[in-house]
Order: sequence, then C-alpha cells, then structure tokens
Amino acid sequence: MAEYMSAPLVSASEQFAKLPGIGMKTAQKLAYFILNQPIEDVEKFSSEILNARKSVHFCKVCQNFTDSDKCSICNDEKRDKSIICVVEAPKDVSALERAGGFNGVYHVLHGLLSPMDNVGPNDIKIAELVKRLSGDVTEVIMATNPTVEGETTSSYISRMIKPLGIKVTRLAYGLPAGATLEFADDVTLQRALENRNEL
Amino acid sequence: MAEYMSAPLVSASEQFAKLPGIGMKTAQKLAYFILNQPIEDVEKFSSEILNARKSVHFCKVCQNFTDSDKCSICNDEKRDKSIICVVEAPKDVSALERAGGFNGVYHVLHGLLSPMDNVGPNDIKIAELVKRLSGDVTEVIMATNPTVEGETTSSYISRMIKPLGIKVTRLAYGLPAGATLEFADDVTLQRALENRNEL
Repeated sequence: MAEYMSAPLVSASEQFAKLPGIGMKTAQKLAYFILNQPIEDVEKFSSEILNARKSVHFCKVCQNFTDSDKCSICNDEKRDKSIICVVEAPKDVSALERAGGFNGVYHVLHGLLSPMDNVGPNDIKIAELVKRLSGDVTEVIMATNPTVEGETTSSYISRMIKPLGIKVTRLAYGLPAGATLEFADDVTLQRALENRNEL
Repeated sequence: MAEYMSAPLVSASEQFAKLPGIGMKTAQKLAYFILNQPIEDVEKFSSEILNARKSVHFCKVCQNFTDSDKCSICNDEKRDKSIICVVEAPKDVSALERAGGFNGVYHVLHGLLSPMDNVGPNDIKIAELVKRLSGDVTEVIMATNPTVEGETTSSYISRMIKPLGIKVTRLAYGLPAGATLEFADDVTLQRALENRNEL
C-alpha cells in the first residue's frame, strides 16, 4: 500500500482483505473500525473466530459442520433416519431447516462433481453417503442446486444408489412462489409445464 | 438465528456481523469461509487483528495512529515541522500522503465539532493541537471536510489560533479534477467562481 498507515494497521487490513468480497478499501475501513472498539470486544472477535475454526469439524454421520461428535440433527431422536436429503454445502442445510417441513436427516457432499474443475467422485463425500445406505434407509432426496454440476452430481449418485433398491427422488422444478409467468425464464417455464400436477 | 448452524459458527457469524457494513447474511458467508481456511491462516487473521488493536495508539505529537512513541511522519527529519495540516481522521492523513505534495506534519482531531451530536471542543484533540503551537509553527492548514461540521470546526480552531499570530489557511474550494461544469453542483460552481485565479 502506497498510503501512509502504521505497520500493524496495514497487516490487519491485509487480513481483512483476504475475506471474500472485501476489497482493500473496505478492509482499511474495517481495520480503522477495530482500532476504535474496546479491547475486550476485539479480543472476543479474534477468539470467537479462531474458536469456530478450531472446534468445528465434520459430523461423523452427515458431514455437516458440528462441534460435537455427531451434529444436533443426527443426534435428534425425533428425526427420521430413513430419509436422507443430499445437499452440496452446510448453508443448504441451513436454508432447508429455515424453510421447515423436512423431518429426515441430511448428507453434505462439500462440493459437486465438476470434471472441468477436476472434481471427481473421490473429492466429495460420496463414499461417506454410500456407507450410510444400510437397511434402514428407504429414500434419498437429491437436493443439489439445479445447475450443470448439481444435475451431474445428482444423476451420478442416483445411478449408484438405485441398484441398492433405495428410492431416489429429486427436488421439484417449477415456478418459484410469487413468480409471474411473464418474468420466468424459458427453462423454468418448460419445467413447470413438464411437471404439471392434476388438480 | 432461526437457521440451523453449530454454536461456534453462530458466534463467529455474530462477531463478523458487528463489523460496519456487514449484515447477517454476509457474516455467515464469512464464517463458512473461515472454516475452509487452513488453521494457520485463521490463527494469523485472528492474531494480526488483535495485535493491531493492542499495539496501535495515538502518536504523542500528532495523535495519528502509530505503534511507536511518535509516528513515522513526526519522526521524519525531512518533514517541515513549522506547517501543521489539521485533519478529522487518520484516513485523511492516508489520503493526503497518497496524493503527495505536502511536506509538513499533521494533526488528527479524531472527530469534528458537532453540537447536534454533543461533540464539543473537549471531545476532540484541540487542546493537543494548541500545545504544539510553540514558536516554530508558522502555518496551520485546516483540512477538514467541506461539511457543516468541518466548517464549524475549521472556523472555531482558526479563531483560537489567529490571536497567536500564526497564519491559518483552508484547503481550496473549486472544481474537482476532471469535472465538467454541466454536472458540478451549485455550491461547487459558486465557490469555483468566487475563488477564481488570474491567468
């Protein structure tokens, strides 16, 4: 940086600038903000973030982030262990839990198959999913995003699981809630037509 | 948060959300990002930020942030100590140093007079400025922003200093570089006319 700043301030800015979506200008603003905070607050900021990184790891069952051996969903007696919903990332579990309506358990792949980016079946948590498919599991819901990678991953896993005699389903495609036909894209409209339901 | 997340992850998100301009959604994204970084990187992030807060304090002369007794500008033998440029905040020193062309020293007020917000002369570093106005100082440049508070502070300080026989100047008003008359606001145009220079 050409600008005049004290060395520790420059280091703090550089650290902030490593965060996604935060440029050098914002990073400097954040560093100046930190200097004006009570020292106990900055100590808390610093330690809680490090603590998250240190204490959080993958749930041994579903591979979601947890600070225990098993995550709270896998540990929950009331959740139906016979239905597994497969998602790309922990944030997708958050989204589905927020929406509510699902009482099964999850499996987090931590990525999607993408030959272009050299991501193969061994780079994501597919083996861990297959290990879970014992006698109890009756349905696997593929809830990857409707992108090329999401579809590829979904059909790869579905072809793997079907021979085991387990039902594999996919999240429904169609018009999003509150959408108007006028502004819906072509693919969404086509899919909404294809998957039409009888009233 | 209603969403499902591990407790340390929630704490880390809440810490990020305390930063200015970062909402809960972005904070969660940053917390997830941190979990995917190597632990040494997160340790560095955490310690450099805490270190900035712990080691940086006010320069005993100009009140700018520094990690030494005196900041590097005040310590610089080549800087002209007889001209003091008064600014609102450390980031203004950065901006002026980046622009170049000033070889004097600075004084950081850490705020502006604002009766509306209950900020009086004792709440900003005015006393520290007056203490510096010994025999050596020949000029004080008021470089506060051209806002109501900036002007108020500038004229308050100038009325205080003038009786001491020290020259007080103000940054020039006028058209910014690259500006077109068409899009300049009225006040800027009026000031550009008032302060016109002979060619």
